[in-house]
Amino acid sequence: MENIKKIKGGVLAAKGFKTCGIACGLKKVKKDMAIIYSDSPCSFAGVFTQNIVAAAPVVHDRNVVKNSESVHSIVINSANANACTGDQGLKDCHETAEYLAEKLSDENKKIASDQVLVCSTGVIGVPLPMDTMKKGMDIAVKHLSSDMKNNEDAATAILTTDKVKKMIAYTFDIKGKSVSIGGIAKGSGMIHPNMATMLSFITTDANIDKETLQKLLGSSIRDSYNMISIDGDTSTNDTVLVLANGESGCEKLVEGTEEFETFKTAFDLVHKTLATKIVKDGEGAGTFIEMNVTGATCDDDAKILAKSVIKSSLVKAAFFGADANFGRILCAMGYSGVHFTLDTLDLSFSSKSGGIKVVDKGKPIAFDEDLAKKILLEKEVKVLASLEDGDGSATAWGCDLSYEYVRINGDYRS
Amino acid sequence: MENIKKIKGGVLAAKGFKTCGIACGLKKVKKDMAIIYSDSPCSFAGVFTQNIVAAAPVVHDRNVVKNSESVHSIVINSANANACTGDQGLKDCHETAEYLAEKLSDENKKIASDQVLVCSTGVIGVPLPMDTMKKGMDIAVKHLSSDMKNNEDAATAILTTDKVKKMIAYTFDIKGKSVSIGGIAKGSGMIHPNMATMLSFITTDANIDKETLQKLLGSSIRDSYNMISIDGDTSTNDTVLVLANGESGCEKLVEGTEEFETFKTAFDLVHKTLATKIVKDGEGAGTFIEMNVTGATCDDDAKILAKSVIKSSLVKAAFFGADANFGRILCAMGYSGVHFTLDTLDLSFSSKSGGIKVVDKGKPIAFDEDLAKKILLEKEVKVLASLEDGDGSATAWGCDLSYEYVRINGDYRS
Repeated sequence: MENIKKIKGGVLAAKGFKTCGIACGLKKVKKDMAIIYSDSPCSFAGVFTQNIVAAAPVVHDRNVVKNSESVHSIVINSANANACTGDQGLKDCHETAEYLAEKLSDENKKIASDQVLVCSTGVIGVPLPMDTMKKGMDIAVKHLSSDMKNNEDAATAILTTDKVKKMIAYTFDIKGKSVSIGGIAKGSGMIHPNMATMLSFITTDANIDKETLQKLLGSSIRDSYNMISIDGDTSTNDTVLVLANGESGCEKLVEGTEEFETFKTAFDLVHKTLATKIVKDGEGAGTFIEMNVTGATCDDDAKILAKSVIKSSLVKAAFFGADANFGRILCAMGYSGVHFTLDTLDLSFSSKSGGIKVVDKGKPIAFDEDLAKKILLEKEVKVLASLEDGDGSATAWGCDLSYEYVRINGDYRS
Repeated sequence: MENIKKIKGGVLAAKGFKTCGIACGLKKVKKDMAIIYSDSPCSFAGVFTQNIVAAAPVVHDRNVVKNSESVHSIVINSANANACTGDQGLKDCHETAEYLAEKLSDENKKIASDQVLVCSTGVIGVPLPMDTMKKGMDIAVKHLSSDMKNNEDAATAILTTDKVKKMIAYTFDIKGKSVSIGGIAKGSGMIHPNMATMLSFITTDANIDKETLQKLLGSSIRDSYNMISIDGDTSTNDTVLVLANGESGCEKLVEGTEEFETFKTAFDLVHKTLATKIVKDGEGAGTFIEMNVTGATCDDDAKILAKSVIKSSLVKAAFFGADANFGRILCAMGYSGVHFTLDTLDLSFSSKSGGIKVVDKGKPIAFDEDLAKKILLEKEVKVLASLEDGDGSATAWGCDLSYEYVRINGDYRS
C-alpha cells in the first residue's frame, strides 16, 4: 500500500491516453459527449448489466469484449440511453462505432469499428439522434488531448442527474517503472448494480493481457459496484470498461507475483473509490451510509445482509430523519433470506461525532438519544452489525431516501 | 359468484363472534387494543412473516397454530410491535394470553392460555408495558359485543399510520344455511409480505376443520397479500389469522365439493379485498397501481415480473409524477431474474380516463402524452404487460412513492 499514491488525472493519469468532453446538442446546453482514446491498441475488459432488457450499447460492447483482441477508443453520450430502442438502437451503435473508427484512422493507422466501444446513459426508449451524434464526433475528435483539463470535461460530459464529477487515479512502481491507473464514473439513479455499475471507465498504462484483466475486473466489482445501492433498480446500461495500453513500459503483469498484487490493490482501490463516489452523489442523497457486517457464516451471507440493509426504503427514510431506528435494520437483515443468530448480534452506529451501541446480544439497550441524533446528523455514518456465526464479513454502501429523490424521479423521464 | 353477496360487518358478519376496540393508553389518546372472541371454540389457521427477526407474538402464535386444536380469542395491540424484545417479549406474550384466558373464563367455560392468539404492531424494540396491557384487557373484555359499531372500533384500534379502516364481509348459502366470512386488516408501511401481510383477521361461521383451513389459507395468500408491496420491507410482525366457529350450522366443508368451492371463492375474495385495501392506504400513497402480466412462461414467472415492477422505486416515483415512463417498467422486468422475450412484449396503461399502448412488440410507439398524463393522474391505474412466452399470468398491486412516504418514515420510529 505504501507504494501506491493517489494522484490527479482520472483517465489521463496513465500514459498515452487522450480524452475530451464536449456539448453536441443531446442536452440543451451542457456537455453530453466524451471520447477516451489511446494511440496504442489496448488490452481491455468489460462487465455489464445483468438486466435482460440490456441497452443496445451493452449488446454492442459485449460483442466487442467477446470478439476483439484490442480496442483504441470508447465514445460515451449522456442524455439518451439508447435502451428499449429495438434493432434500430443496435444499428445506431454500429454506425457510431464505424463513424468514429473512420474519424480516428489515417494512412498510418487503421482503426477498425470493432475496436471502438460505445456507451450511453439517459432517457430510455428514445432513438439516438444520429445526425447529432455524428456532428458531435466531428467536434470531439478535434478536442482529443492529454491536457488535464480534458479529463474534467470528459468526467462532466458523462453525467446525467449527478451533481459532482467522479474521478480517481493512483500511481505506483513496478520494477522501477512508474505505472498509473485511473478512471471516471457516473451514477446517481437507477443504481443497484448487478455485476457492474452505471458507467465507469478506467485506463491504465500497465502491461496486462485481456484475459487476466477480465478476470481481475470480475473479481474487483464484487466488492465495489456490486456492494452499492441507491434505489434498488438495476439499470439497462450498467457498464464498466478498462483499457490497458502498456505504455508505462513495465513488464507484463503475471498472476501470483508481487507486482501483480500491487496492481490489483490499486485496481480494487480505483473501483471501490468510484463506487462510493457514485453513492455519495446518489439522487437526493444527504447521508452516506456504510453498512458493515462481521461474524456472518460466510462472506456471501455477510454481503446479502449488508445489502439488504442499505436497500431498505424504511432504513433509508430513517437515516433521512436521523433516527437511530435499529429495529428497521434488524428487520431488513431478517428478511434478507440469510440465516443469522439474533441472540449474538451487536449493533452500533458511528460517525465523526462519536459511536453508540444500540443492540447488545440481540436485545435493545438504553442509549443516549441526543448523542445518537448527533452521530446520525453527520454526512457519513457507519453501522456495524457484529455477529458470532462465523468469519464472514462485508461492507455495503448506500444513502438515505429523501424528498429530493422523489422530486427528481417524479419529474425526470430516465 | 352470484351466490356470494358483499355485506357489512367485518369480523362480526359471521355468527357467534364478539369484538371490541378500546383505548388502553399505549397510544396517547387513540384506540390501541382490540379483542376478537367466539364463545364456541374455533377451528383456525395462521400464516406469518418469513422474517427471521420474527416478533414475539409471531413466535407465540406459531406455537399455538402448531399445538392447539382450537382457539377462542385474539388480542391485538397497536403502537408497540413487541419485536426485537428478546426473551422478555415472549414472556409478555404468554402473560398476555394467560391474563386474557383467565378473564374470559368462568365456572361454565374454561379457556386455556394456548387458546388465545396475540398480535402486536407498532414501534420495534420497546418492551410491552404489561401494566397498561392488563388494564386494557380489564376494560376490553367488558366491551365485547356483537354490536356492529364494535367491528368499526376493532378495525380502528389495530391501525398505526393507516388512514382508513379496512374491513370486508361476504355471505352465501351452503345447502340452505347462510354462511358468512369477513375480516379486518391493518397495514401501511413495512409492507412487502412474504407468506403473509401485516395484520389481517378473518372470522367465519363456516364448519371447516383446522387442517383444511390452513391449506386454504396457504393457497389464498399467494394471490393476495403476497402480491402487494408498498415499500419492499417485509415486517417482523406480518400475521394473518382465520377463526371458524361453525355457528352457521352448515355441514362440514369438504374439499372437492361445490360448497367448498363457494367458500373458497368468498375466502379468496376477502383476502384479495383486504390486501388491495392495504395498498390503497399505503404510506403516502396517491396512486393505486395494478400491474398485470399475461403470456409469461408460467404463473410463477408472471408473479416475479409483476412484483418486480410494483417494487421499483423508480417506477413508483414515475407514477407519483404521472409520467408514462414505460422504460422503467421494462427495466424492472428486465432485472427481475425471470426470462422473457422483449421482442413480443406489448405494454399499455389504462384507467377510467381511457387506455393507451406505449410499447408494441418490444418497441416504443409514439403516443399522445396528454392522454397518457390524464390516464396516469387517476387514483387507480392499470398496467398490462402482454407477453407471448406461455400461459402464465399474475396481478400485483402497489402504490406510488411520494414525499409523504419519506416524511412519515423519516419521522416515525416503527
